[in-house]
Amino acid sequence: MTDTTAPSLASLAVPECHIRETGLLPEHVTAFRRQGVLAVRGLLSPAELESVQEAATGLIDDAWRTRSMHDTIWTLEPHEPDAAPVRIEYVMDKSPVMARLAGHPLLLRAMETLVGPNFIPTWDSMVFKTTAGAPRLAWHRDGQMYSDAVAVTGGGRVIDVGIYLDHAPEDNCVWAIPQSNYWEDEQVTETADRLNATEWDATGAVPAVMRPGDALLHNILTLHGAPAVVGKQRRVVYYEYRPGEVERQLGPHVPEYVGLKQQVLRACLEQRAASGEHQDEEPFEYRPVEQYRLWDESPAISGLRFPHGEYWRW
Amino acid sequence: MTDTTAPSLASLAVPECHIRETGLLPEHVTAFRRQGVLAVRGLLSPAELESVQEAATGLIDDAWRTRSMHDTIWTLEPHEPDAAPVRIEYVMDKSPVMARLAGHPLLLRAMETLVGPNFIPTWDSMVFKTTAGAPRLAWHRDGQMYSDAVAVTGGGRVIDVGIYLDHAPEDNCVWAIPQSNYWEDEQVTETADRLNATEWDATGAVPAVMRPGDALLHNILTLHGAPAVVGKQRRVVYYEYRPGEVERQLGPHVPEYVGLKQQVLRACLEQRAASGEHQDEEPFEYRPVEQYRLWDESPAISGLRFPHGEYWRW
Repeated sequence: MTDTTAPSLASLAVPECHIRETGLLPEHVTAFRRQGVLAVRGLLSPAELESVQEAATGLIDDAWRTRSMHDTIWTLEPHEPDAAPVRIEYVMDKSPVMARLAGHPLLLRAMETLVGPNFIPTWDSMVFKTTAGAPRLAWHRDGQMYSDAVAVTGGGRVIDVGIYLDHAPEDNCVWAIPQSNYWEDEQVTETADRLNATEWDATGAVPAVMRPGDALLHNILTLHGAPAVVGKQRRVVYYEYRPGEVERQLGPHVPEYVGLKQQVLRACLEQRAASGEHQDEEPFEYRPVEQYRLWDESPAISGLRFPHGEYWRW
Repeated sequence: MTDTTAPSLASLAVPECHIRETGLLPEHVTAFRRQGVLAVRGLLSPAELESVQEAATGLIDDAWRTRSMHDTIWTLEPHEPDAAPVRIEYVMDKSPVMARLAGHPLLLRAMETLVGPNFIPTWDSMVFKTTAGAPRLAWHRDGQMYSDAVAVTGGGRVIDVGIYLDHAPEDNCVWAIPQSNYWEDEQVTETADRLNATEWDATGAVPAVMRPGDALLHNILTLHGAPAVVGKQRRVVYYEYRPGEVERQLGPHVPEYVGLKQQVLRACLEQRAASGEHQDEEPFEYRPVEQYRLWDESPAISGLRFPHGEYWRW
């Protein structure tokens, strides 16, 4: 049998889904599982994008003003003159706009299709580059928490969603190595070490060029990195999702975390439904299986912030 | 938040996909993952159905004639007067029609969407009830091979496809317990023991009524069973599929099995393409990721029969 199906370079570009035109189709599901990345174009409406941008600016301004390290990562100690904030954790709890964003029906329908009906939100944060600049993001996988990780989630059931609030052109975007989500540990380590040995080497990688309002989905096992930049603003809201059954059986959080984060998701849906801004959309209906409707078994929540360290299994 | 999303009885029926009308849609993917079963209506064209029925009859006639136990399971020792054959293994190797059936493009596209791009065929067999009758199929899960099985495949990445060659009405069909694919071992054992304590108890289960040419997909973790029948013929071809990355990391077969069964799949596709009977369809193109294109690394195959026992990992 002549092999006519070897992947061409073009087939290794970041696959795209214009979600408002087609929804997430089976070919997008397979493309994401195969390549480990998927660009979802135009996820946010112009109005919601503007509202999230404004909320993001508020959170970043707060960080500069307070110079606090609470839930905030800085390039240097905050009091040092060149220090800049680069990441804020638990943004759903800090901003009602971010909470409502976490109830976005197109986003959640895509997660239901890709992660499964029992999906839960896990990490939520904002990563940003201010005009003060940001260092290179070294080549890495996001999580290596499971033994036999490729068997458990090589196919893409643990997903990091980056919602872009600013342009990410080729010189200031994430680069990813397609299909590295299926690599064995050894190949990941060897490749990351080799690429990270010089300031910026993107051999074998493709750029994820993004526009404001787009979302980049990546499998947490996909090897990715980004070059250092100076003088450019780029803000990305990151929401991560995992299957409830994987979280409950394998962690990384304690089993009770599942029901608590389901309450968070339901609260976000409730807040979105109650706001006047999203009346024209069909809300997402969260329907995990009977066995994974765990919100009532957990104590009622009073906020949306569940620090990972307090719920860590190990 | 008022809970308006508790599942109704109707929502627990076997979900359906009319595959020639709609293809497999994201809602079918989620319904299968949620319920653990999916009825794919009208998978086979009338012509192919007829051809597979004829091949099936030939294989069953062979069993009766030879009274051989080679790859064949009988209700009693074959020489006993009331003995009847009920199952034949490795049907792809025994019949070119069954091999071509295994190259069916709609079937394989559905498997690519549900199992992932690196899917491989594992088991292939025919299970049948002759007019000599067949005993009850006790309530069971097909496989309990993985620790943390619900995390690994509760969401439905290991799939058994039953292609029906005869009617399976309510009194002679498989019954399944929706969502039991997410149950913990303890609940599975307790429920199976309770239901199996009497001759036929289908409490909590739904019937999978099937027509000739339909296919029933079930998650191997879904609890299912069937009542005893007398005097009715019912033939089902079973093809099972697993993700290559799960097979290679976790078994149950040795890692080399992946490349061998990819060669089997490619041979089936080649045979289907070469036959004059399927010229009007778009063939399935098998495109696993680079890391899982393993057919060239394995010795070339001379047949389609790879006995599980010879490739078992443990």
